[in-house]
Amino acid sequence: MQLGLIGLGKMGFNMRARLHAAGHEVVGYDRNPEVSDTPSIADLVRELRGPRVVWLMIPHGDPTRRAIEELSDELDTGDLVIEGGNSRFTDDQTNAALLAEKGIKYVDVGVSGGVWGAENGYGLMAGGDSEDIERAMPIFDALRPDGEREKGFAHAGPVGAGHYAKMVHNGIEYGLMQAYAEGFELLAASDVVTDVPATIKAWTEGTVVRSWLLDLLVRALEEDPELEELQGYVSDSGEGRWTIEESINNAVPTPAITSALFARFASRQEDSPAMKAVAALRNQFGGHSVRSSDD
Amino acid sequence: MQLGLIGLGKMGFNMRARLHAAGHEVVGYDRNPEVSDTPSIADLVRELRGPRVVWLMIPHGDPTRRAIEELSDELDTGDLVIEGGNSRFTDDQTNAALLAEKGIKYVDVGVSGGVWGAENGYGLMAGGDSEDIERAMPIFDALRPDGEREKGFAHAGPVGAGHYAKMVHNGIEYGLMQAYAEGFELLAASDVVTDVPATIKAWTEGTVVRSWLLDLLVRALEEDPELEELQGYVSDSGEGRWTIEESINNAVPTPAITSALFARFASRQEDSPAMKAVAALRNQFGGHSVRSSDD
Amino acid sequence: MQLGLIGLGKMGFNMRARLHAAGHEVVGYDRNPEVSDTPSIADLVRELRGPRVVWLMIPHGDPTRRAIEELSDELDTGDLVIEGGNSRFTDDQTNAALLAEKGIKYVDVGVSGGVWGAENGYGLMAGGDSEDIERAMPIFDALRPDGEREKGFAHAGPVGAGHYAKMVHNGIEYGLMQAYAEGFELLAASDVVTDVPATIKAWTEGTVVRSWLLDLLVRALEEDPELEELQGYVSDSGEGRWTIEESINNAVPTPAITSALFARFASRQEDSPAMKAVAALRNQFGGHSVRSSDD
Amino acid sequence: MQLGLIGLGKMGFNMRARLHAAGHEVVGYDRNPEVSDTPSIADLVRELRGPRVVWLMIPHGDPTRRAIEELSDELDTGDLVIEGGNSRFTDDQTNAALLAEKGIKYVDVGVSGGVWGAENGYGLMAGGDSEDIERAMPIFDALRPDGEREKGFAHAGPVGAGHYAKMVHNGIEYGLMQAYAEGFELLAASDVVTDVPATIKAWTEGTVVRSWLLDLLVRALEEDPELEELQGYVSDSGEGRWTIEESINNAVPTPAITSALFARFASRQEDSPAMKAVAALRNQFGGHSVRSSDD
Repeated sequence: MQLGLIGLGKMGFNMRARLHAAGHEVVGYDRNPEVSDTPSIADLVRELRGPRVVWLMIPHGDPTRRAIEELSDELDTGDLVIEGGNSRFTDDQTNAALLAEKGIKYVDVGVSGGVWGAENGYGLMAGGDSEDIERAMPIFDALRPDGEREKGFAHAGPVGAGHYAKMVHNGIEYGLMQAYAEGFELLAASDVVTDVPATIKAWTEGTVVRSWLLDLLVRALEEDPELEELQGYVSDSGEGRWTIEESINNAVPTPAITSALFARFASRQEDSPAMKAVAALRNQFGGHSVRSSDD
Repeated sequence: MQLGLIGLGKMGFNMRARLHAAGHEVVGYDRNPEVSDTPSIADLVRELRGPRVVWLMIPHGDPTRRAIEELSDELDTGDLVIEGGNSRFTDDQTNAALLAEKGIKYVDVGVSGGVWGAENGYGLMAGGDSEDIERAMPIFDALRPDGEREKGFAHAGPVGAGHYAKMVHNGIEYGLMQAYAEGFELLAASDVVTDVPATIKAWTEGTVVRSWLLDLLVRALEEDPELEELQGYVSDSGEGRWTIEESINNAVPTPAITSALFARFASRQEDSPAMKAVAALRNQFGGHSVRSSDD
Repeated sequence: MQLGLIGLGKMGFNMRARLHAAGHEVVGYDRNPEVSDTPSIADLVRELRGPRVVWLMIPHGDPTRRAIEELSDELDTGDLVIEGGNSRFTDDQTNAALLAEKGIKYVDVGVSGGVWGAENGYGLMAGGDSEDIERAMPIFDALRPDGEREKGFAHAGPVGAGHYAKMVHNGIEYGLMQAYAEGFELLAASDVVTDVPATIKAWTEGTVVRSWLLDLLVRALEEDPELEELQGYVSDSGEGRWTIEESINNAVPTPAITSALFARFASRQEDSPAMKAVAALRNQFGGHSVRSSDD
Repeated sequence: MQLGLIGLGKMGFNMRARLHAAGHEVVGYDRNPEVSDTPSIADLVRELRGPRVVWLMIPHGDPTRRAIEELSDELDTGDLVIEGGNSRFTDDQTNAALLAEKGIKYVDVGVSGGVWGAENGYGLMAGGDSEDIERAMPIFDALRPDGEREKGFAHAGPVGAGHYAKMVHNGIEYGLMQAYAEGFELLAASDVVTDVPATIKAWTEGTVVRSWLLDLLVRALEEDPELEELQGYVSDSGEGRWTIEESINNAVPTPAITSALFARFASRQEDSPAMKAVAALRNQFGGHSVRSSDD
């Protein structure tokens, strides 16, 4: 089928290739004219046959909101917008309401898989009305991994549910990475296990902890066995924070995922103000020596 | 090759089958005469040709210690004991020293894979001298998954390193399960995602969080979509505790794994004494209503 | 001076008494006519001499918002509203903007001290313009503990800062209570210390952990030495949640306060869905026995 | 009464002064001849009239063990040793057994109060037999704060209970400091509260969070309002670790105290190996940019 695709960055570019390979017709738009098929969103809309399907794959927040507003002007009743970026699920409800005023349909899709999705296919979680999702199914089938549809695609619920599922997915991802990372650090810190990379590689088949992330850790350790070329500095992109906020809204204890988020926060601090306060307290009550900033 | 196998429970029984299938000769002993090939450890030793290899697969602590003592009496110089149970790595050093007095060799092996190992093979982490490990390699090759040896087996270091690696593996396992469990609870608690089992199933291919544990969660949800037939009561078997103790000994922060352990502790409490204390404090300072034990 | 006081519940009632004792004139309004001095907010406003000062001490959220709206109709330019309830700091900015349209001033005050404040005085944290805060200072001086003003009152910053400070205060309070509670539980669970209440009482003078909360814990244990008359069921009122949300917004790791919030969430669960998921996973991979809901 | 005091460091020196002030006779020994009253432990024993009471106030572990061994040689049946240092409670049981072979009595005392104890008195928690504790009561009364005995002294239980109580006390102390420190950091990181030191000072009277530690934080902020002269580098001295180990042994969830310990561990790391692993994973799956060690 025919698809308009807005956003041809790291993810969108790969997705276009995967869609092409599956025989779909993709008209792509990107701010970068070198990769764009069309000079503007308005042109993209004109090039598509109605009823149109347009997939958004651009940064969440303002860029996505502006694109939705532009699409609400350009598209017609019965057209369908699929928001495949990392929008917060609450934005989906706003987006869908705006488009619904013009009779334009809306589906949100959480997309997982990173740069590997081009080859392996992406895990997809969709939110919206069944008929809208059914209409886009050929696209989803092309993007998801080959094999059973149910293992790489779900209709998670109404509008917002796709990104909600992706948000939780990413929260889990934070926790999984933190667990592996803690184990790695303990193995490296103690001197009992003398071959840490080989030990971790031996977990990749047969064990309870085998996973794709573990395979990636093995790859990383093959390139740099002590990870000495990296800094322990980790960004966070939103979904982890939203997961904790939602866990608070729903009174769900999420200590492992939260500890992963906090570890990222701490990784970006030059020095910890909280630990300064503890050092100051110990100095006050016990005369414990402290390290001054000049040390 | 020929192997003496002490302990034919859930794990040992399956391992014997896998070794048989690979053409090895196994003389098994178990307290349960219905599954045992031989009436006693002493008989088992007599049935083996020297230099013997004896694998222990029984509960750690006292049972393993007693078996090691008996083997130190029965075995001869040059024989090899492989402790494949869940011993603490510090016990391995004691065991090896005791056997070394008689010239008996010792290798410790952490074995992962649960009941699925019979079919898939087990992930193995071994500690000991290279020549001892090399000698038992046909056994390891039969037990580990088919495929590259390095993906299911590692010589992790000297005596103790195998169980140390398994301990950390299990600590990671706690953290991974906690992360999935928190995500599951959040999906179930919020009402945005309406089909939780389908959503989790859609993570099994293509996504960043795909893993064997996730496959098992999908299986569990297929059997009981809301897990309503289970209690949230979780035991812990030692390795998780040891992992935290070792993280403390090595000053390694392990918040995610620790939160998983504490969640298990809490799952087994009828009521939380700490939360009683918080309730008592709030009542004292704010006159906040509390629930009495009679409510 | 003269003050209008809206809300004569547990806190407002005591505050009126303390203000009376200091010689101030208080016109109080409450929905409950038995404690109210005046039949309506409109009447309360009419009874006050301009420029008026009106203190709000009612539940945050909708009730406070409605009262602010009513006051914006009834009050005149130059009047001052003090929001002393537990509003979220972001609400203060909305409230102040609404009132500013009419030239009405706004100060937010966080009030701590619980039911003991009537006797001991309340700790106060105020946000707003200096001249507005100065104008209300006789009220603040009457409400705060006797002694140095700086030990019981602060002008924390602009509008919102008073409630922000109170929010963080409450977050800390969660953490402090959790720390004492964990220590209490450990003392009670181990059998080494045989007189737990006496041990905790011995901490009330001289030690590093002495505090007012500890004094309250001693009182609670004097009434019920094993806290056996209470359930470990703890509510949370908003400030703890907002503290974590703000810590996330500011990328500040707050693991102790967060663990206190999560412990409260868990205290209110009949059973933990997350722990059901962990039990299900262990059953899947290891054939570990689980407890069914019927057990 | 007469007391032998071994160890005249920061704590012992102050305690001797406080005992002198109360009219007790103290014979002190220290490795440092400038503060010692006597050249050796043997001389100290000879200078004391029997039945003797000797108080140990030296570093725990080897130094205390060696002193106990020497005292077991030098003291006589009926003499009493009081171990007032920071021994692990399990060491007390060993110490008591060793001394009991000679008929020498043993009491362990946890001492809290830091350098302020000289002036304020120390909080004391004692373990041992009632008659031994009664015998030393004049010493305890001189060391504890003036006022009710029960507010600064407890007979916590049998041998070991004093140090167990002190261990838990210190665990709580870790948690309390962490809670204040997190709140401080959040106030400092957000820009809503513009006068952080004044705000924290306003908590010292009337509020729920008032405590001695808070008073010390106010002092620290008066000396250095942004704590910019300190590094966020915090040692830990044993009791925090033991508290977590005991919480694990007793299956008691202690997330707040544990998070405080882990924050100290992290404060001493130049870079976090765990966070390197997370950075490596993100780079592997998403091509997320990382910071190299050269950046």
